[in-house]
Amino acid sequence: MENYIKNVREIRPLIHHITNYVTVNDCANITLAIGASPIMADAIEEAASIAKIASALVLNIGTLNNRTVDSMLKAGEAANEKNVPIVFDPVGAGASEFRNETVKKIIDNLKPTIIRGNLSEIKYISGLSSNTKGVDAAEDEGMDDVGEIAFKLAEQLNTIIAITGPVDVVSDGRKIIEIHNGVKEMAYVTGTGCMCTSLIASALGANTHDPLRSSVIGIASMGIAGEIALKKTEELGTGSFHISIIDEISKIDDSFFNERASIYERN
Amino acid sequence: MENYIKNVREIRPLIHHITNYVTVNDCANITLAIGASPIMADAIEEAASIAKIASALVLNIGTLNNRTVDSMLKAGEAANEKNVPIVFDPVGAGASEFRNETVKKIIDNLKPTIIRGNLSEIKYISGLSSNTKGVDAAEDEGMDDVGEIAFKLAEQLNTIIAITGPVDVVSDGRKIIEIHNGVKEMAYVTGTGCMCTSLIASALGANTHDPLRSSVIGIASMGIAGEIALKKTEELGTGSFHISIIDEISKIDDSFFNERASIYERN
Amino acid sequence: MENYIKNVREIRPLIHHITNYVTVNDCANITLAIGASPIMADAIEEAASIAKIASALVLNIGTLNNRTVDSMLKAGEAANEKNVPIVFDPVGAGASEFRNETVKKIIDNLKPTIIRGNLSEIKYISGLSSNTKGVDAAEDEGMDDVGEIAFKLAEQLNTIIAITGPVDVVSDGRKIIEIHNGVKEMAYVTGTGCMCTSLIASALGANTHDPLRSSVIGIASMGIAGEIALKKTEELGTGSFHISIIDEISKIDDSFFNERASIYERN
Repeated sequence: MENYIKNVREIRPLIHHITNYVTVNDCANITLAIGASPIMADAIEEAASIAKIASALVLNIGTLNNRTVDSMLKAGEAANEKNVPIVFDPVGAGASEFRNETVKKIIDNLKPTIIRGNLSEIKYISGLSSNTKGVDAAEDEGMDDVGEIAFKLAEQLNTIIAITGPVDVVSDGRKIIEIHNGVKEMAYVTGTGCMCTSLIASALGANTHDPLRSSVIGIASMGIAGEIALKKTEELGTGSFHISIIDEISKIDDSFFNERASIYERN
Repeated sequence: MENYIKNVREIRPLIHHITNYVTVNDCANITLAIGASPIMADAIEEAASIAKIASALVLNIGTLNNRTVDSMLKAGEAANEKNVPIVFDPVGAGASEFRNETVKKIIDNLKPTIIRGNLSEIKYISGLSSNTKGVDAAEDEGMDDVGEIAFKLAEQLNTIIAITGPVDVVSDGRKIIEIHNGVKEMAYVTGTGCMCTSLIASALGANTHDPLRSSVIGIASMGIAGEIALKKTEELGTGSFHISIIDEISKIDDSFFNERASIYERN
Repeated sequence: MENYIKNVREIRPLIHHITNYVTVNDCANITLAIGASPIMADAIEEAASIAKIASALVLNIGTLNNRTVDSMLKAGEAANEKNVPIVFDPVGAGASEFRNETVKKIIDNLKPTIIRGNLSEIKYISGLSSNTKGVDAAEDEGMDDVGEIAFKLAEQLNTIIAITGPVDVVSDGRKIIEIHNGVKEMAYVTGTGCMCTSLIASALGANTHDPLRSSVIGIASMGIAGEIALKKTEELGTGSFHISIIDEISKIDDSFFNERASIYERN
């Protein structure tokens, strides 16, 4: 995992985001902090043409609406056509019919390279995916294991599944990788999930040959930044913690990453 | 006022916001900082269903448009139906016909539990409310008193009115409560009003039995945070002051609140 | 250049923004920091009426869509009618057909007082402007000089052109002014260009008699803030740098500006 972050800083890949308006500023700033170049563009008139020239496309449904869902589909089709990798963040999957239908549309019509969500979002997609394939409830038994959930869904969808939580897991349907970085306090800052997705896309945009490692780089970078930021700001509060996470990403490099990352491959 | 903040941190109420895109990140972060859980969702396809499962609904018209106004009305109706309390922030009431019509629609069609605004916004609503009820101008005499304005409008609309300004006042149409916390420098950070509304909704979501106290908790917490944050960042500037306000909210608890809050009930 | 900033802080001009949702919070906060009063309103139902009462109008196409482009045109027409100056930020001009068409619509239908962009955005407009006037490619020779590009476009469009970059240049088609403030690290924070546009509009709103100086005030203030902020936060990272830029703007005054500004008029 020698030069993944260096590659981002040198190549400065263009990361096209169609994302929510809650955390979009943080996503742009963390994309810049890791060394990539963000472009946020959700108009249907330009979504496809910008996706085509990007190095990676982020689709994040945090504040989806009809207009932006259409743009996501158009951008996603253009990206697939040009082999621009898509990172999908199914924010709130399971929380409303509208989100569920949108997730289904994206998964049915596009081929994301990586899907990153929390456990409940990914579990929702697993159920969806099971249903569409006629898999019955009985097959879900023993699925309490997070790594197993990621593995099975990755296999089914032929994509990489990343589940972030107390322990983060990533699987490509062949391996399961666990990441033991990060701190629980990150849940008290909005958008740490969205920012993690932007970091994954940034890593991927400069290292398209290796989406599995790119996922790990994005997730573990976020976790490491959270650990250091918490130590520096614990007595200040969550506002400062938020800013400090971006600070730490702006200073991370491959050697520091390798020193701090806590990554295990399961057998 | 023993456990109002503790209740927020323990119950972690879900606070559904349909709000403006200027300060939405701060609203989400301050909601998390006080211990509640924000969800920002403005699509008409999901606004009602999410409002139904929320503990409180914030309607903030800071950057309203036709699409989001419709969602506010749908979400508000669903909230009223399920007894989910609504906190309404009439940003810019009086500043344009479109805002005025929207305020009228919301007040005519929904039953907000609390309305929080600045003096000019609430005065605009008072005029509106007077007009609709045929109250003539003569009755407005002597209305220069902020507490009186809150009291009368609260009585008329059978809701709680909170007016934030140099001195904050809250009334339920029976009592008038004054809050003497806060600093004038808060006007140099965008969204301190919006954040205050989110804090009120967070307090209310965990203490639905007592909307009057919840309003006071939200407003005085914001004021206390502003006082401490200013002291810590006065030499740095308004960017740091902004972050520090969120920091202080993330550390506040009932005992510190009680020590610092400057609350008077008028007779 | 004695009292330009003092005027902003005393007059507190209302700056109407129709801008992107990525950096809108920073634009509002930096407008407040320099002493002006921001209002963000993009609904077509109110865009014109708010533009009419503003001291300056910012049109920023960072995350344009059909709805907001229509509002920009309506607000712009109202502003022109009432002699409210317009500051246009053609974010991403040249990056998509949709942006290009929008830039053309704005330039053809409105009369901006100032256009601020980076070199590639302004070059795109220069080409557009040349084309519409039948100027052939040969005439573009020797246009590598940034000051020259600003000068010619300012002359053609009868407006002020500000190009921000390693060296900032401003021209009104008569003079070329160079500003040597700022640091390259500002490119690692999203929205430093947008914030610069907001500062120009804030200066202009309080000093409408002098749009050229207002442009210089806005640009050099941003540069000075960047220089000081970098010194204070270089070891922390880009998150802190971002916040510190707003801090420094909140403390700037004319005397400090004059001491630090590095402004040269070319002959």
